[in-house]
Formats: sequence, structure tokens, C-alpha cells
Amino acid sequence: MSYISLMTDFGTRDGNVGVMKGVIWNIAPEAKIADLSHEIDPQHIRQAAFVLGRHAFYFPENTIHVVVVDPGVGTERRPIAAQIGPQRFVGPDNGVCTLMLERAERNYWPVKLVHLNKPEYWLTKVSDIFHGRDIFSPAAAHLAGGASLDDLGVAIDDPVRIPIPQPRRTPQGWLGEVVYIDRFGNIASNIHRDDLAGLGEVTVTLAGITIKGLVRTFGERRPGELIALYSSNDYLIVSVVNGNAAAEIKASVGDAIEVASHS
Amino acid sequence: MSYISLMTDFGTRDGNVGVMKGVIWNIAPEAKIADLSHEIDPQHIRQAAFVLGRHAFYFPENTIHVVVVDPGVGTERRPIAAQIGPQRFVGPDNGVCTLMLERAERNYWPVKLVHLNKPEYWLTKVSDIFHGRDIFSPAAAHLAGGASLDDLGVAIDDPVRIPIPQPRRTPQGWLGEVVYIDRFGNIASNIHRDDLAGLGEVTVTLAGITIKGLVRTFGERRPGELIALYSSNDYLIVSVVNGNAAAEIKASVGDAIEVASHS
Amino acid sequence: MSYISLMTDFGTRDGNVGVMKGVIWNIAPEAKIADLSHEIDPQHIRQAAFVLGRHAFYFPENTIHVVVVDPGVGTERRPIAAQIGPQRFVGPDNGVCTLMLERAERNYWPVKLVHLNKPEYWLTKVSDIFHGRDIFSPAAAHLAGGASLDDLGVAIDDPVRIPIPQPRRTPQGWLGEVVYIDRFGNIASNIHRDDLAGLGEVTVTLAGITIKGLVRTFGERRPGELIALYSSNDYLIVSVVNGNAAAEIKASVGDAIEVASHS
Repeated sequence: MSYISLMTDFGTRDGNVGVMKGVIWNIAPEAKIADLSHEIDPQHIRQAAFVLGRHAFYFPENTIHVVVVDPGVGTERRPIAAQIGPQRFVGPDNGVCTLMLERAERNYWPVKLVHLNKPEYWLTKVSDIFHGRDIFSPAAAHLAGGASLDDLGVAIDDPVRIPIPQPRRTPQGWLGEVVYIDRFGNIASNIHRDDLAGLGEVTVTLAGITIKGLVRTFGERRPGELIALYSSNDYLIVSVVNGNAAAEIKASVGDAIEVASHS
Repeated sequence: MSYISLMTDFGTRDGNVGVMKGVIWNIAPEAKIADLSHEIDPQHIRQAAFVLGRHAFYFPENTIHVVVVDPGVGTERRPIAAQIGPQRFVGPDNGVCTLMLERAERNYWPVKLVHLNKPEYWLTKVSDIFHGRDIFSPAAAHLAGGASLDDLGVAIDDPVRIPIPQPRRTPQGWLGEVVYIDRFGNIASNIHRDDLAGLGEVTVTLAGITIKGLVRTFGERRPGELIALYSSNDYLIVSVVNGNAAAEIKASVGDAIEVASHS
Repeated sequence: MSYISLMTDFGTRDGNVGVMKGVIWNIAPEAKIADLSHEIDPQHIRQAAFVLGRHAFYFPENTIHVVVVDPGVGTERRPIAAQIGPQRFVGPDNGVCTLMLERAERNYWPVKLVHLNKPEYWLTKVSDIFHGRDIFSPAAAHLAGGASLDDLGVAIDDPVRIPIPQPRRTPQGWLGEVVYIDRFGNIASNIHRDDLAGLGEVTVTLAGITIKGLVRTFGERRPGELIALYSSNDYLIVSVVNGNAAAEIKASVGDAIEVASHS
């Protein structure tokens, strides 16, 4: 059984996601397809990279993650495919798989990338503006159907990467930044649970507001309270119970977030 | 073949629904998964209960309905699973399956509930805030793959229920209330078609406005007209042809709706 | 393997799309189902026709495209099913399949239509307002499971069609109109790439604004620039790079769009 996930910035109104499934099933009739997100902000490569990095490794081995957030469609940017540890990727070479690559490197997993340059694995007619349908879906479906990366293109080792901000140690703790805000307004930082091990009680400061201590889950505080806790993938987040933290404290991606030992 | 439906209040932007499918397919590679809704108002248990109650029994026998509308995630509230007549349920013990339970009881169908307390059927690492991914999806997938309820947890007989308002008889007819408003602004009451049998011609009063008589379908009246009719599951509803009744007459869930015999 | 696509104006909040999948799987347990769109503007038959016409023929042979954009539900309008060249259709007889029919005729593909008038292929209980669940989904599932069109109803040859505007030749080029605006505000016309062959350099005029020349893809111009190019299905479109052309130049469906030879 082969699995494909789809992530785009297309929205779901105009049928452009559905047609990709039609194209895939023409080539890989048994493929099971999950939508990861189609509401990435238009052309927001970094947002797509974070959503992909957070979820991809929960899928079955060799799932093919197709990402079509592709401001350079039809230009010289390369279409690529990759094996990134236990998962696979198909999409534009614009950095959307950066966090998958980083995870593989941290885990010493093998990585292989190819430039999709064999048109015999694409639709016969390729438009200049919808490679999701014409190149990425057919390439993913051929992978699902048993083609190898080498069948689909020539090996490359210089994929485009986007800069991923790293938190840094301070005398009192850590200085990180806001990397993602979800639809509920939960504010995710790049500071990991492991970073804070051994710091004891901490305060979290963001947008001029300081929160004392972390909680384990939302239900420990009352609706409306601002809390700091760990996300389901172990990064420090700031939330309002039953509310929208980003809107309330006017936080944005890129803002500084500081953790200081309380003792 | 096993079937799973998913209902959450996650929205579809951040990938949290997609990752649940990845987790399920890791354990139950063949499961077919349908999205029931991911736009339940955040933490609105009652709304989820109504959507689930209306649709669940149309699915194939033994479909597993996973509901993650879970304000108590990470607290003492129990994760549960259940056989409710011909359908199954996995989710938090907070009342979201109340209308499924009521339907089973009206039909004298067998009901069996278990407290999901066997971590060997969950992901190895369980976060405090995303049990949809870490507990409910794996538990549902194990059920889909052939595990029994007894494998997954110990039997319980005291599930949390939410109060479901019942209409009451009046000298002239029935007094009910608004229980659900859909995205088109159609206003659904808890008064059933069977309740009105034998009343003859009726008037329907809601938010100070009285509608004379029921119609069978929208096309019987002109755009803009306020009408009363039966929903596709036989409850009395109030609509505006091609319009938004709830917005126009400012009706809300909980409002009284009264039916009186016309004769 | 059989494939079904679903298109409705239901939105995805209330579970009415999910329940259709439950009904389908009861009858056709193996059917693979793709959502084409559920955000068609309420009862906007023409919009549905354009989305269907653009995407349907990319699906595997004999895919059944179910469309429930159905303002006449419960009235005398017929439920129909059709073989339209290599694809199939199930839905109301209101013109939503007009562009599929036109394409078949241009290609001399066989077309066969039936009036769905055999209730034994529907749910036992049929509501007056949700034929998507009660008639169209079961009929599509029976087709997927091997029933023939003749099993499901009697042949008809007078399907309802909606008028599809055709561009006309002018002394300088072509006069067409805006037929679809997508969620990004890209403005699609009914002027085909083939129409413009041999015209040489052109200007495109729309809403009082003239664009000189066509580009091949978005990346050839800077963000904010108004451009004319061909859509992924070869119709002339007007866009703003990284922006919303329809909002910026206040274009609407039905507006005139004129192409003139530049030389």
C-alpha cells in the first residue's frame, strides 16, 4: 500500500486539489491520499516547511509528501523529489523540505535528492503555471507505483534551504523566536523542551508580557488566562485558554521570546 | 474493509487532521477515512454531538467515529471507546456521543463502553495536549485492525452525557427550542415530524415571527421568503429561501420555537 | 477500482459531505472518493459547471462525478446520470454538466443520459431536501459497484443546459467575457489559446485597463504587476503577481474582455 500526502496554498474552492487526486489515481490506482493542508498562506514557503516538518514523520514509511507552495512555478527553479530518512518528498526546490532535511541530518538518516528532469514521468502536456497537476502529482504517483528516484531524475546535492532560526543561550536561559502561529492563535517558538531541562522554574517573556512558570495542559487554568506550555511536538508555546494568544498580545512570527530561570 | 470518520474542532490549516490519518494508516493500513467535520466551533461539545448524532448511523456497520472536541485534554477526563448499536465511537468522555447513546437506547440496541487505559494501544510518546494524534487515532486504528473494546480498556457504564433539551406539549401544540444552526443559517429545532402528526395545519413562532403552514421544499417559495419545513432527518426547521434565516430573524441556539395548531 | 468525485455547495462544517461518503461506502465498499469542491457559491450552477468542466477529464476513466448544487431539490427537476465520453456524471438536471457535454460533442465522444427514476437504487427513505445523500450518492455508488445506466433509469436526450458564452471575432482580434474568478482573484476568460494563434503581439483590455503582451508565468514579473497569460487549461487569464486581480481592477464574471492585435 502506498500513501501520499498533499499540501498546497490552493485552498479547496476551485478544484485544483481534487484534480491532483484524479491525476494520481490514473497512474497509481491504489494510492491512499491524505490532505495535510491546503490553507498555507499564498506562497509562504516557510509556513509550509514548518507544517511539513512537524507532521511528516508520523506517516507510514515511504509516504510521499507532495508540497505545492511554488511561487517560482514555470521559472528556472527545479522540480525535485527526495528520500529523506523514512519519508519521501516531491515538490519545488525552494526550501519547503528544509525541516525534513534537518531532522534527517540530526538522526544521521540517509538523504537522496533528484532533479525531476524526465518528462516521460509527467503529464504529456505541461502547463507553465500548474506543475502540481502536471509534474508533481504524476511524479509522486510513479514513485507510489514503484518507480525509483533514479528513474525520475538525476541526483543533486544542493537543494535550496531556507534559514531556520535557532535559539541561543543567554546568561539566564534562552532567547528564541516565534516560528509559527496556528489558527487558534497559539504561538509556537523554536525553544525545545530539552533546551530547558535543568533550568528549574522559568519565566517566559514575549511582546512585553511575562508569564511565570509552565503548565502541562490547558485545563489547568481558567478560560482567558495566558499560559506557557509545551506543544505536542515539545516546543515552548504561549496560549490563552479558550482564546487567541497571538491576537491578544499582538505577537507575530519572528518576534523574540525569552526564557529565564526563575531561581 | 474498515471505515473511520473524523470530527474535530481543529480546522484544516495546521495539518493536525492530516497527521491523524498518517497515524491511523501506520496501524491500520487499509482503513478508509472520511472527514465528517473539522469546523466544529472550538470546544463546542454540544455542536459536535448534534453533527455526530445526525450523520453517524448512515455509515457502514462498525464504522469508528473519532471525535476530538476535547477541552479537557490532558486532565482527568477519560478517553473512551464504545460500541453504540451498529456504530463505534472513540473520543473523550465529555458527552459528544450523547445523541448516539440516546438513539441506541430508543432502539434497544446494545451499548458497550470502555475507558481507554491501555497505553500499549497508543503512540509510544503521548503529549499532554494532542490526544487526537497520540491516543484516539491509534486506538481507533487498532479497533479497525481487529482489536476488541476489551483489548483497549476496562468496561465503564457511567459515560458523561450532556443535557439534550426535549420539546414539551402545550395546549395548542409543542414548545421546543433551537438546537443547531447550519452554515446557511437554517435553524433546526428539536421538534420531530412525528410530534406534529395529527395537529393539522400549524403556525410556527420563533423570535417574535410567525410562519403559517409548512412547505415540503425550498423550491415551493420565492427567494427571500421565510419558510418552515422538515429537515432531512425529520426535525422542524426554519429557513429563508436562498437566504440566511438565523441572521435575518436573529435566532440563536437555545431560543424557544413554538408550534400551534391552526384550526 | 472505482472512483467518485464530489462537488457541492454544502461547505464542510455540518457533516453533509461526510455523510455522503458513508452512504456511498455502504453500497460500494471499495470506492475511492475525492472532494472536488464543497465551496461552490450557494446554488451557483454556472460556477459548478466551470469547475467540473475544467477538472473532470483528468480523472481515471469512468470516474463518477457527483454534483450537488441543486436549488430545485424536491421539485420537478429530474435527477440524472450520464456517461459523457470517458467520464460519468450524477446530479440534478439543471445544467451543471453542460461543459462536460460540450467537450464530449467537440470530441465526438458518445454521450448517454438517463433520468434516475428507479427508487430501488436510492435510500429507502428519501427526504425532500437532501437528494445528495438520499438519491445521488446511492445512485453513484450503484454505478461504482457495477450497475449500468439502464439499470438506474430511463434514457433521456433533452438535458437542461446553461448558456455558455462564446467569444467572437472582431476586426482587431477577439471579444470574450470573464467566466470564472478563482479564490486568488485570477480572472479567467473564455478566449482560448488557439483563438489567438497567428495574431502576433496582442493587448488585453478589461475593465478599462489595457495590458500589453502576454507572459508565460507569474515569476516573469514583479509582485503587484498586472499580467495576462494562459491558464493551465489554455484560456486567457488576467492576474496580479502575488495579488488579487479581480479585487484590484474590480472585474466580475460577465465583464467584457478584449484582445487586439498589437501590430
